[in-house]
Amino acid sequence: VSLVLYGNRESGHSYKVRLLLTLAGISHEYVHIDLEVPRSGRPAAFRAASRFGEVPVLVRDDGSALVQSNAILLHLARDRGRFGPPRGATWDDLTSWLFWEANRVGFSVPNLRAARFRGDTPADVMAWLEARVIDDLGVLDGQVGARPFLLGDAPCVVDVACCAYLFWPEQAGIDLSRWPAVAAWLERIAALPGYKPPYALMSPPAGP
Amino acid sequence: VSLVLYGNRESGHSYKVRLLLTLAGISHEYVHIDLEVPRSGRPAAFRAASRFGEVPVLVRDDGSALVQSNAILLHLARDRGRFGPPRGATWDDLTSWLFWEANRVGFSVPNLRAARFRGDTPADVMAWLEARVIDDLGVLDGQVGARPFLLGDAPCVVDVACCAYLFWPEQAGIDLSRWPAVAAWLERIAALPGYKPPYALMSPPAGP
Repeated sequence: VSLVLYGNRESGHSYKVRLLLTLAGISHEYVHIDLEVPRSGRPAAFRAASRFGEVPVLVRDDGSALVQSNAILLHLARDRGRFGPPRGATWDDLTSWLFWEANRVGFSVPNLRAARFRGDTPADVMAWLEARVIDDLGVLDGQVGARPFLLGDAPCVVDVACCAYLFWPEQAGIDLSRWPAVAAWLERIAALPGYKPPYALMSPPAGP
Repeated sequence: VSLVLYGNRESGHSYKVRLLLTLAGISHEYVHIDLEVPRSGRPAAFRAASRFGEVPVLVRDDGSALVQSNAILLHLARDRGRFGPPRGATWDDLTSWLFWEANRVGFSVPNLRAARFRGDTPADVMAWLEARVIDDLGVLDGQVGARPFLLGDAPCVVDVACCAYLFWPEQAGIDLSRWPAVAAWLERIAALPGYKPPYALMSPPAGP
C-alpha cells in the first residue's frame, strides 16, 4: 500500500481525507488513532509522522508525511488529477475556497461541536460560535443555491472539505432546514458513488 | 501596472499580501478601500473583483481576481518564484503551514484584536479567544525557537502570513515577552530589506 492515513472517528478533518480517497478510489491503508491514549503511548510510526501528534496525517510511499487536512486534499487533487477544479473554475479558485474553509466553516462548526461535547463551555462562547456558524452556512447556502456543487457542476475537494462536519449537524446543534440549499447539496454529495457517512468510514474495526 | 491590490489599513490579511509584494520587489498598485463606506458605494472595479466585498483582493493583468490572503501568497510564491520553501522544506510543508495559519493564529489573533476594538465582547468570549492565542503562539514559539524562520534558514510566505497581525501586539493585548522566540523572529522579519510596519504600508495617501 502506497498511502497510509492516520485518523480518528470523531475527527471530521480526518474524515475529509478518507472521504476523498474513497470517492476517488485511491488505494490506501487507514489506521485509527485512539486519541484517548496519551501521545507517548500512540503508535511509533504515527508519532514519527505527526508534527504535533494531531490527526489526520498522510504518509506517502517515500515515507514523507503530510499534515493539515486541506493541504492533504490539495496535494491529492494535484497529484492524482481527481476532484480538481470543475469546468469554469481555476486552481486559484480552489485554493481560495480551501483557505476560506480553514478560516471559516472548518473552524466554526468543529469548535461548536467540540464545545457541545465538552458541555462546560460558557453560554456566551456558545452564542459567539453559533453566530459564526450562521454566517458561514449563509455563505455556503448562497454558493450552492446557484450551482450544484461549490465551484460548479461537478464536485471537487472544496466540497469534500466543506461538507465533512456538516454530516453531523445534530452534534453541532445545527438545524439544516434553515439552509435548504446546503441540505440539498449534502444530499448530492451523499449520492456520489462510494460515499459513506463519517462513522462508517472512520471507525476502528470491530474488536474480537 | 500588472497587479492591483485592494486592501485596508486595519486588515492584517491585506498587509500580508502587500508585505510580500514589497519584500519581493513585485511591482503593483495599491488601492485603499474605505470599509466604512457601504458596499454599494465602494469603487466599481473593487466590487466587481471581490467575491464578498472583502479585502484583500489581487487583480491580475488578465483581469482575474484572487481572494483569500493565503491563496494570494501561495499564488505569488509559485508564480514569481519568490518566498517559496527554503532549503530542507517542500511546497507541501509550505501549504500545510499556510492552512495551519488560516485555522489557528490567523483566526485567533485577528478575532481577539477585533473583539477588543468593538469593546462589547463578553468576558468569556475574550478569555476563550485569549486561550487560543496562547496555544497558537506557543506553537510558533517552538517552531522559531529551533530555526531562524518558520520553515528554515530563509523567510517564506509562511513567515509573512503568520507575522502580520503580530506587528500589532498591543492592539490584541498580547505581551510578546512571554514568547521570546516569537519576538526575536519578528525582529528578524522587520530587519529584512524593504520591510515596513502595517500602517506605513497600508494607509491611504495623505489628503490634500
